[in-house]
Amino acid sequence: MQAWKDYQEKNKDRFLDELLELLRIPSVSANSDHKDDMRKCAEKVQQRLLEAGAATARVYETAGHPVVYAEKIVDPSKPTVLVYGHYDVQPPDPLNLWHSGPFEPVIKDGRIYARGSADDKGQFYMHVKALEILSKTNSLENNIKFLIEGEEEVGSPNLAGFVAAHKDLLKCDVILISDSSMISMETPSIDIGVRGLAYIQVEVTGANRDLHSGVYGGAVANPITLLAKMIASCHDANNHITIPGFYDDVVESTPEERKLMAEAPYDETEYKNDLGVKELWGEKGFTTNERTGIRPTLEINGIWGGYTAEGAKTVLPSKAYAKISARLVPNQSSEKITEMLLQYFKKIAPAGVTVEAYNLHGGEPYMTPIDSKAYKAAAQAIETTFGKKPIPVRGGGSIPICTILEKELGVKIVFMGFGLDSDNLHSPNEKFDLVNFYKGIETIPYFHKYFTS
Amino acid sequence: MQAWKDYQEKNKDRFLDELLELLRIPSVSANSDHKDDMRKCAEKVQQRLLEAGAATARVYETAGHPVVYAEKIVDPSKPTVLVYGHYDVQPPDPLNLWHSGPFEPVIKDGRIYARGSADDKGQFYMHVKALEILSKTNSLENNIKFLIEGEEEVGSPNLAGFVAAHKDLLKCDVILISDSSMISMETPSIDIGVRGLAYIQVEVTGANRDLHSGVYGGAVANPITLLAKMIASCHDANNHITIPGFYDDVVESTPEERKLMAEAPYDETEYKNDLGVKELWGEKGFTTNERTGIRPTLEINGIWGGYTAEGAKTVLPSKAYAKISARLVPNQSSEKITEMLLQYFKKIAPAGVTVEAYNLHGGEPYMTPIDSKAYKAAAQAIETTFGKKPIPVRGGGSIPICTILEKELGVKIVFMGFGLDSDNLHSPNEKFDLVNFYKGIETIPYFHKYFTS
Repeated sequence: MQAWKDYQEKNKDRFLDELLELLRIPSVSANSDHKDDMRKCAEKVQQRLLEAGAATARVYETAGHPVVYAEKIVDPSKPTVLVYGHYDVQPPDPLNLWHSGPFEPVIKDGRIYARGSADDKGQFYMHVKALEILSKTNSLENNIKFLIEGEEEVGSPNLAGFVAAHKDLLKCDVILISDSSMISMETPSIDIGVRGLAYIQVEVTGANRDLHSGVYGGAVANPITLLAKMIASCHDANNHITIPGFYDDVVESTPEERKLMAEAPYDETEYKNDLGVKELWGEKGFTTNERTGIRPTLEINGIWGGYTAEGAKTVLPSKAYAKISARLVPNQSSEKITEMLLQYFKKIAPAGVTVEAYNLHGGEPYMTPIDSKAYKAAAQAIETTFGKKPIPVRGGGSIPICTILEKELGVKIVFMGFGLDSDNLHSPNEKFDLVNFYKGIETIPYFHKYFTS
Repeated sequence: MQAWKDYQEKNKDRFLDELLELLRIPSVSANSDHKDDMRKCAEKVQQRLLEAGAATARVYETAGHPVVYAEKIVDPSKPTVLVYGHYDVQPPDPLNLWHSGPFEPVIKDGRIYARGSADDKGQFYMHVKALEILSKTNSLENNIKFLIEGEEEVGSPNLAGFVAAHKDLLKCDVILISDSSMISMETPSIDIGVRGLAYIQVEVTGANRDLHSGVYGGAVANPITLLAKMIASCHDANNHITIPGFYDDVVESTPEERKLMAEAPYDETEYKNDLGVKELWGEKGFTTNERTGIRPTLEINGIWGGYTAEGAKTVLPSKAYAKISARLVPNQSSEKITEMLLQYFKKIAPAGVTVEAYNLHGGEPYMTPIDSKAYKAAAQAIETTFGKKPIPVRGGGSIPICTILEKELGVKIVFMGFGLDSDNLHSPNEKFDLVNFYKGIETIPYFHKYFTS
C-alpha cells in the first residue's frame, strides 16, 4: 500500500522521537522507587494511543502498576485484534557496563540504545504507529484493542485478575504480541512457542552472625560453600538437570520436528564469536537451537553472600543467597516445577545450615498452531514486506501471560517479534535496530489486512 | 602493686573515654575513602603515647597508611619490650546488622560495642595505659617501644619494608602482641601459635556480556553455576580439602599434643547454642578445637554475580566472583599455598569459561615456645591478676606480621590476648568487655616487672 508507505516516510522522524520520549522514562517495575515513573509512562502511552486514532484509552488501576487499555471499534461484526505489550522494563544494572545511560537513548550505527528499546517499548510502539497509519489513511477495516501492562518483567502478578474482570472489554479473535525476536532481517521467523518459567530465591543460613574465618573457620558450616555444593548438584557431567522428576512431563520433540529445526540457519563459529566464548555449554545430545528452544534449562541468575567489596575481609558469613530459574517446555507446569525446586533445595540442605526458599516469578510454556488464520496472516504480512516466507521457530524466552490470556479470553496468540537475539535484552546496552523498528511498523498493517480479508 | 591499682582506679573513666575517642575514628584501611581518617587516627595514637610517658612518638610515612612509633628508654642495658598493635580496623559492613553505629561506641551490659573495640584498638590501648601507670607511678624498670601500624587488616603490605629499614630503632628482646583472645575470664589462656593465611580472588567469565537467560539459557556456560562447581570440588564428603598437595607440608600434631588440647574446657552444646546452629561442620577425624587450631581450612569469604537486588531478573550473567582464603598451619607456606590455589582454580575451569585469579592477602603460620623467659613472664603476670595459670592454646586466626617481625628483628613474639572468641571480630556488633579491658591494663605492668626481674 503506497499510502501507508508515504505516510510512514513523512512521519518517520516523529515516530522515532516519540519512542525516544517513552524510553527516557525509567519504568522499572521491579524497583518500588520507580512507582511514579510507572504512572508517568502509562499516561504517556494512553496519550499516544489517543493521538494514534484510538477512540478511547484509559489507565486502569491495579494492586500494582497500572494497565493501559485502548480501542478503536470500526464495526462490531468485523474481526478484533487485541495487541498485548508492556511498558515496564528490566532493571538497568550493572550500570557500569552501559556505554550510555540506560534511560538516555542514543542512536548509534543505526541502532537505538536504551533499556526497553526492544523489550518491549520499541516493539509495542510499532503497533501504536501501525494504528496511526491505518487510521490516518482511512484503511482500518477491523477492530483493534490494546492491552499494555506495567508488570511483565515482574511476572504480571495483577494481570490475570484484570483480564478476568474485563473479559467483555478484552473480547477478541486473536491476540497479537511483539515481544520476541526473529532470526535475522535476512531470515525472518515467527515464534510458535515460548518456554515457561519457574523462578525462585534460595537463602542459606549457617551461624546466627558473621564470624571471623580464623576463629571459627573449619568448625562451622560456611553457607556459601554449601550453597555452591547445592547448586553444583543440579547438573550432572552431561549437563542434564539432576533434580528428581524434572523432565517427567516434558513432551519430547519428534525426530521430524528436530529435523525441521535443524534446517534453520545457524553458524556456530559466528554464534561463539558474537558471545566471545571458545566453547559452548549445554545438555549433551542436543543442538544449540534445541537447547534454547525445546529443552528445559536451569540457570543461576544471581548469587551473593559474605564480603564482596574491595580488598580482603576474613569473614565466615552467616548467609548466602541465590536466584535460580528454570525455563520450561510443553507440558511442564510452572507451579509444579516451582514447588519441585523449592522442595529440592530445602531437602538437600546439608546439616549445619538451614534453607529458606520461595517463589519469585513464573509462567507456563506456550505453543501456538501454524495452521490458524492469524498465523497465516502474520506469515503473509512478513512475506509481503521482507520478500521471504518466515520460518516457524521455538523461542527460548518466556511470556508468562500467554496462558493467562488464552485461558481467560479463549483465543490463541500469534507472536510477531521484530527484535534480534543480539538486542541485549535484560542486559547492558539493550538496543533495537532502527530498520527493525520501521520494518515492523510497515509490516503490521498487512497483518490486519490479511487477517480481516 | 597497690600504687598501680590505685592509679588505675582513679583514672579508669578517662582511660575508657580515650579509647572511645579512638573508636569514633573510622580507620578502615581497606577502603581508600578513609585515607584521612587513617592519618587522624595515627596522630591521635601518637598524642596519647606522648601523654602516657613515651619520650618520643612519631608518625612515619609509608607507601600506604602511616606507622606510629614511640619509645621510652629507661636504661639501654635493661631489657626492651616492643609492643606491636594496629590502629586500622575491618570494614564495618553489613551495616544493617549492627545494633548501633560501628563508629559510635556504646557501652551496654558492661561491653564496649564498636568496630575495633577488641581488634585491635581496645587491646593495644591497654599497653598505652600500662605505660602510663608504670610512668606515673615511677615503676618502669625496662625499656618499652611501640610499633602501631595501620595496615594489619589488609595484609601489612608496607610493614616488612618499614621494619627492615628501621632495625636499630626497633631493636628489642621480645615482641609483645595483644591481638588475640583467651578462652574466658575464668579460664585464661595464652596463644602459642596462630594460623597463616592465603587469600585470593577468583573471577569467572562466560559470555562477553550479560545475556537473557531465556534466549541463551542452556547453550552458554553460566559462570555462577561453574564457579559453584569449582567451589564444590574443594572439599570431599569428609570435608577434607581436595586440592592436590594442600596438606603436603602440614606438620601433624603428636598424640600427646592432641591429648593436651583436649583438656581445654569445651562445651559443644554451649558452642552450638552461641552460634545458633544445630550441627557443627568440619574435617572428619578432628575435634572442634583441633579444626580451628591445628588444621588448615578453606573458606569462601564472599561470592557475587548476576542480579542480586529485589525481585526477579532473568539474566545469564557474564561474570561471577569469589573471595577464597585458606588458614595455614606449621609448616605450610603462604606463598606456596597461594600459588597452589591460583593454579587450581585456573586449571579446573571448565570449557566455556575463563578464570582469572589473583592474590589479595597472606601471612605465614607462627609458633612461639613456652619455655622462654617472655612466655613465662606473661603466664606469671596472668596468674597474678587472674589467680589462675593460663592454658597454652593454638589460635585459629592469623597475624601475618609475626614471621616478618621475627625474621627482621631476630626475637620471638609472645601473645597476650585479652579478647574473647565471642567478641564478633570482623563481624557486626564487635565488642570488648570492660572487665577484659581493665584486667588487661592491670596485668600488663606485671609482664614488664617479671620479664625484667
